[in-house]
Amino acid sequence: MMDEPARPGPPGASPDAPPETCPAPASLRVPAGPFPQEDRDALWRAILGRRDVRNEFTTRPVPDDVLARILTAAHCAPSVGLSQPWNFVVVRDEAKRREIHELFSRANAEAANMFDGPRQALYRSLKLEGILTAPLGVCVTCDRTRGGRVVLGRTHQPDVDLYSVACAIQNLWLAARAEGLGVGWVSIFDTEELKPLLGVPEHIVVMAWLCVGYVDELFTSPELEARRWARRLPLEDLVFDGAWGAPAGDLAPALRAAAQDQGLAKG
Amino acid sequence: MMDEPARPGPPGASPDAPPETCPAPASLRVPAGPFPQEDRDALWRAILGRRDVRNEFTTRPVPDDVLARILTAAHCAPSVGLSQPWNFVVVRDEAKRREIHELFSRANAEAANMFDGPRQALYRSLKLEGILTAPLGVCVTCDRTRGGRVVLGRTHQPDVDLYSVACAIQNLWLAARAEGLGVGWVSIFDTEELKPLLGVPEHIVVMAWLCVGYVDELFTSPELEARRWARRLPLEDLVFDGAWGAPAGDLAPALRAAAQDQGLAKG
Repeated sequence: MMDEPARPGPPGASPDAPPETCPAPASLRVPAGPFPQEDRDALWRAILGRRDVRNEFTTRPVPDDVLARILTAAHCAPSVGLSQPWNFVVVRDEAKRREIHELFSRANAEAANMFDGPRQALYRSLKLEGILTAPLGVCVTCDRTRGGRVVLGRTHQPDVDLYSVACAIQNLWLAARAEGLGVGWVSIFDTEELKPLLGVPEHIVVMAWLCVGYVDELFTSPELEARRWARRLPLEDLVFDGAWGAPAGDLAPALRAAAQDQGLAKG
Repeated sequence: MMDEPARPGPPGASPDAPPETCPAPASLRVPAGPFPQEDRDALWRAILGRRDVRNEFTTRPVPDDVLARILTAAHCAPSVGLSQPWNFVVVRDEAKRREIHELFSRANAEAANMFDGPRQALYRSLKLEGILTAPLGVCVTCDRTRGGRVVLGRTHQPDVDLYSVACAIQNLWLAARAEGLGVGWVSIFDTEELKPLLGVPEHIVVMAWLCVGYVDELFTSPELEARRWARRLPLEDLVFDGAWGAPAGDLAPALRAAAQDQGLAKG
């Protein structure tokens, strides 16, 4: 089977004449080792302080260099077969964002009707997007043809390209937290309806609309927990030792201690 | 429509009697703001230094407290509707990992045949997993029934639960880098064949097999680039301004500068 791109991808995706083998020179490796405690704390500060922002955006513009840094963080994500299947459509134009917001509003009205009684009332009280209040949006996509017809690592699990793009979004989100930017991931719209608004081709998967803007304040825990929509689950119930359903066992006390250390444990 | 869980989920996924609205008390918010430069540098050190590890694992055991920390980082990921659809099956047992490795070997032989000529020879020369050399594996799954029959944010995009789990994997990966642990994501196996080996129920999606272990050295760039399988793409070709296909324009110089600052730009 050929592994030529089914559609022309960006240049450089696949070297023209790879050598038959390529021993990796030792000079391309560097010592690893754990980070000093203060560097680990900084990473955890981003992991713990990252929030899905809907209400807290300010109108302060996002400078190009700051936006470029968070997009660069996304681009540093792992991708299956180094396929880098992501694209980022940056949308500042308010009229365009108003069109996106209309998609959201229509879908959100449909969504609200799917919940019953007090759950529906609570749903309707939640603000679930900052499409217009944030100064810009980023539409993140996955090009499922990137990297050619056969992609290393996708031969038996075709969906890992989508997972790669989600990893890129998480990188962007953490880097944004460190910049003082909030990010809100909006998923309440029909992706096929969004495509013509931004000219996204048929074969491209729309993965996310990210609202991006500066924030002065953030919730200390997930907003859906603060607003009592759902609760965080104890991690020890989600970790199995050796096989599905086998309790975390010896690992359980360590999981409780880690949650405690990071301020996640309650009561 | 009811939003009761279709299958019993872990306790706490959905509070029994939510109030109709829940104004979020100001006390639940904290000042945001950018990180100091040294904390941003630490986050970037994780983002830039994270590698998909296949060859560099040492046999040194991973202590429970360290493993607990990286799983806790995963659990701090965003999830659609706070559904937290992930589970983590930790597998240290070597006999079990040998069975997983057999799945890989079979799939990998099939995969190699999909590439032609010099690409196939190069593919065969690549080591693509550390299932047996790393001291443990983590099977990461997505429970598509978690959070009930209607999940906030999944009404119009049902696949965002899978994306949530990918975000959790990325959190784990970054936290692992800070601990001096390497992670290798293996996707070359048939997920349906893996399920009976670990007793994973039919309705659960197997997202990843992660090899986890200490590493002494790491590649300075993605291993598939070092071994000339593929090249990193210029980010400015992947960013569009306002609509699909519109060049990054004013943002392009900032993207080049960010790549340069992070040591990504070449030549």
